Amino acid sequence: MSDDNQDLMALCKRRGYIWPSFEIYGGVAGMYDYGPLGFSLRNNIVEVWRSIYKGREGFVEIDSDTVNPREVFKASGHVDEFADTITYCTKCNAPFRADHLVKEFYDNPDVLSPKQLEEAFVKHGVKCPECGGDLGPVDEFNLMFRTNIGPGSARIGYLRPETAQGIFVNFPNLYRYNREKLPLGVIQTGRSYRNEIAPRQGMIRLREFNQMEVELFVDPEDKDWERFPDIENETITLVPNTTCEPVEMTIKEAVDKGIIANRVLAYFVNTTKQFLLSLGIKKEKLRFRQHLQDEMAHYAADCWDAEVLLSYGWTEITGIADRGSWDLTRHAQFSGTELKHFKKFDEPREADVTKVRAKHKTLGPRFKGQARAVAEAIEAKSPEDVKDGKLTVTVDGQDIELDGEAFEVVTVREKVTGERVVPHVIEPSHGLDRIFYSVLEHAYERDAEKDYTVMHLAPIVAPIKVGVFPLMEKDGLDDMAKALYEKVHTHRVEAYYDGSGTIGKRYARMDEVGTPWCITVDYDSLKDGTVTIRDRDSTEQKRIRADDAPRIVDELLAGKPFADL
Amino acid sequence: MSDDNQDLMALCKRRGYIWPSFEIYGGVAGMYDYGPLGFSLRNNIVEVWRSIYKGREGFVEIDSDTVNPREVFKASGHVDEFADTITYCTKCNAPFRADHLVKEFYDNPDVLSPKQLEEAFVKHGVKCPECGGDLGPVDEFNLMFRTNIGPGSARIGYLRPETAQGIFVNFPNLYRYNREKLPLGVIQTGRSYRNEIAPRQGMIRLREFNQMEVELFVDPEDKDWERFPDIENETITLVPNTTCEPVEMTIKEAVDKGIIANRVLAYFVNTTKQFLLSLGIKKEKLRFRQHLQDEMAHYAADCWDAEVLLSYGWTEITGIADRGSWDLTRHAQFSGTELKHFKKFDEPREADVTKVRAKHKTLGPRFKGQARAVAEAIEAKSPEDVKDGKLTVTVDGQDIELDGEAFEVVTVREKVTGERVVPHVIEPSHGLDRIFYSVLEHAYERDAEKDYTVMHLAPIVAPIKVGVFPLMEKDGLDDMAKALYEKVHTHRVEAYYDGSGTIGKRYARMDEVGTPWCITVDYDSLKDGTVTIRDRDSTEQKRIRADDAPRIVDELLAGKPFADL
Repeated sequence: MSDDNQDLMALCKRRGYIWPSFEIYGGVAGMYDYGPLGFSLRNNIVEVWRSIYKGREGFVEIDSDTVNPREVFKASGHVDEFADTITYCTKCNAPFRADHLVKEFYDNPDVLSPKQLEEAFVKHGVKCPECGGDLGPVDEFNLMFRTNIGPGSARIGYLRPETAQGIFVNFPNLYRYNREKLPLGVIQTGRSYRNEIAPRQGMIRLREFNQMEVELFVDPEDKDWERFPDIENETITLVPNTTCEPVEMTIKEAVDKGIIANRVLAYFVNTTKQFLLSLGIKKEKLRFRQHLQDEMAHYAADCWDAEVLLSYGWTEITGIADRGSWDLTRHAQFSGTELKHFKKFDEPREADVTKVRAKHKTLGPRFKGQARAVAEAIEAKSPEDVKDGKLTVTVDGQDIELDGEAFEVVTVREKVTGERVVPHVIEPSHGLDRIFYSVLEHAYERDAEKDYTVMHLAPIVAPIKVGVFPLMEKDGLDDMAKALYEKVHTHRVEAYYDGSGTIGKRYARMDEVGTPWCITVDYDSLKDGTVTIRDRDSTEQKRIRADDAPRIVDELLAGKPFADL
Repeated sequence: MSDDNQDLMALCKRRGYIWPSFEIYGGVAGMYDYGPLGFSLRNNIVEVWRSIYKGREGFVEIDSDTVNPREVFKASGHVDEFADTITYCTKCNAPFRADHLVKEFYDNPDVLSPKQLEEAFVKHGVKCPECGGDLGPVDEFNLMFRTNIGPGSARIGYLRPETAQGIFVNFPNLYRYNREKLPLGVIQTGRSYRNEIAPRQGMIRLREFNQMEVELFVDPEDKDWERFPDIENETITLVPNTTCEPVEMTIKEAVDKGIIANRVLAYFVNTTKQFLLSLGIKKEKLRFRQHLQDEMAHYAADCWDAEVLLSYGWTEITGIADRGSWDLTRHAQFSGTELKHFKKFDEPREADVTKVRAKHKTLGPRFKGQARAVAEAIEAKSPEDVKDGKLTVTVDGQDIELDGEAFEVVTVREKVTGERVVPHVIEPSHGLDRIFYSVLEHAYERDAEKDYTVMHLAPIVAPIKVGVFPLMEKDGLDDMAKALYEKVHTHRVEAYYDGSGTIGKRYARMDEVGTPWCITVDYDSLKDGTVTIRDRDSTEQKRIRADDAPRIVDELLAGKPFADL
């Protein structure tokens, strides 16, 4: 962490961007609250993201529960694998992430087993960083917050570690909503939780954090995107896992050379770039790093991290992955619900179909009046349901176990109109708090000599769009300024009235929090109805009619250059 | 529950308003996810609320953590008092809310103690509603979801039962943000949690729910509101706790007659009315019921529930309370942090001030070079800090215990510029999911005979603002309709393209989900560039220029009557 970072965090706290949570009770590590400016900035980031995914791409947005029953995370793998290694000091009892204690000795300490970590402590003489005491045994610590749903402890629940699972488990509902078509794009933003062992690093590692996740379900055989041609010539900085060197190229080149696995993934890598740049992330401090082969999840076809250069070093703020059929396959397996897309062929085809067929002759005598229902239940089953030659069907609420007397598995040649396939998932997953913090750090400019700070926030994300000042708080200047404030201020275009201190101090206060424009009512305003408007970045000033102010602010927000006013 | 309610819930599920959570895993009682239409409707409700509180009133919005350490809820009283009575069937082991089992015998069963409830079971022969078995002992069950923060179980955390506490514990930060002035209005929306024993009643009683809370901190001696005169003649239906009969009167009358405790509370009762009516809640199904004396929290000066008439009966969807100084006093007491407003007098006043004064003469010899620092530390203390004649000060990181040799408590006549007061809190607290459901139920109109449903949603909250159809999906009608869709659709003005089925079917689909307008591209459109626009409620149709469609939709959304197009 640099001095700049500490100055920035102090500013964020002082001016109401973020506050350490529960400060009056001593605080909790890894938890921050969003103050008024922080909330608005964060919300503006979410709105830009929505304008891209809901607006431009036509995706739908859902909101699912944060407390989930254990089954969901058993299927997703989090119950078994979402863990860090932990050790306690035997003397002062402080907990540590075991792999963090040996990071100077290993490139990838998080792949070490608990036993290997214990050996590493001995080998490298690692002691408690707090008190120098001996470290105890290394364990796995699951990072999900655990709770119980309902009375008793019968039903274990967890706070979700990611918003994505809420989309996957709703696949049948979403697929129906989309009228059983692919592609199906779904977004969700909200809280996720990670019970970190010992969080540091400010907003980069939070126990309670915010995500914006996108899950795009596509036909596994159609990894193209309609709008790809619109962006194929845009350039991007990639760090492929073959060379591990940054290289700038066009999106088309990246796909043609096989660097990014497919066009739909490449399109959304580029969308992420567009999104982050529009927030004010600096181009030269943004790169897309491909996961190394041993870093990539075994099921992922390809995975890229958007990394930004911060005072913490290059930091991942978004991941864009082709997750293949992994998520839906796992939930289908654990829930017993088929999670597939029916892909209609252009023309019906002849195909060999293996199916379960009822032996009607044996069913009649055995099941009498129920025979027909049993036969239907048998033929609704698929060959995978046959276990050790037996098949269990449910008729009128009763389970009936059947053997080869009652059914047979046959392969027949049939006309089929389509096939059922498990959709693949393209996932751009955004760490909202990290993006929020990156936007602030990239916007932050401090002149230590002049003791002056300007936050060069992109107007679209700036929490306050316009400061409104009376030159003096008297002679009716204040009334005119207040009336102007009322006209400009809405919950989407926030204005801030300030009448105290010198005009220079008021500009400084607004510059410090990133307000792009300030309007001042002076004595001429009373005569001719004009006011000055000042641009934060150029500090240039122009006179405009007060009545035009709301329209002019809207135009500036829509991108009109200040120089063109 | 009525048939209508069941039809509506079925529609909500089928069309993507709400879905029972984790359905593929059998679901969890009291948990629902918001589908694409539900999310948009809910978000639109939040935006209307923001436009009132952030926009019109200039309040600020924050976002605080959902997992809180125990201290917060110890102070708020939730650890000790946020509980329902529970009993288990001794035979089938099913859990029940004990007071719900005797509600036919008592007016207010929730005031009965566990012992009284056990006696009531015997007296009235109450058995398990599931299996008829005997009921076991009655206990208190705390309704907060509990978890642990960090490794080990040292730090107990709870999922917040209300968003309000996140505002109260941030009072020092918020007060500084507001430049130490009152009134200070703060809003927050987000998840809250209530681990219900056995939730039923659909969206009315959820384990994970959404709130929109407003905490307005005011000077205890100034319970007026600047905009009160603007609304004092608006009428409202009140059910005062004196007569318990609904009566319509003006806001001014309600305050003048002492029915609503003060003007600021009355203003926000009325704001709640304005808010709910603007969402489409029916005026004749909305009333404001004053809490009965024994129902009101002991600290509340006055409390009103906005109740709407639903298929469940009159249901509370918002509470508006004057909570006095309760919340800040409790947190000050439990955290040891002063949570007060410095109220400047217009003129300095002479007043008797009791203070701690250092005995400089005795300090010099005893503390030498530190004497001055010790004296300053003494005089920074207040008389309440003196315990049993002793006072502890901290100098250079060291605690020093002092007795009457070192200091004295004196009362002197001084000029004082102001006083420190604990602000009072006015709290309009909205149950977002209940409001969401109420909006749907009040909008829902089903013609069983014609098997036709229209959801008369207010355009401002309707998830889809406009359906866009080609008359036929061919001959370029589809291309023109798609281009029109692209022009109209944004993430804030959502459009829906539909090309399949008859036009009548497509209108029906849009009517059923509450889309206020539909635009159809027909063969004339190709010739003259005009399209038809149809109004949901009147089913009237007009021809407009396709190019004007985005502007016209904006105008309709801003309130222009369809008849005036």
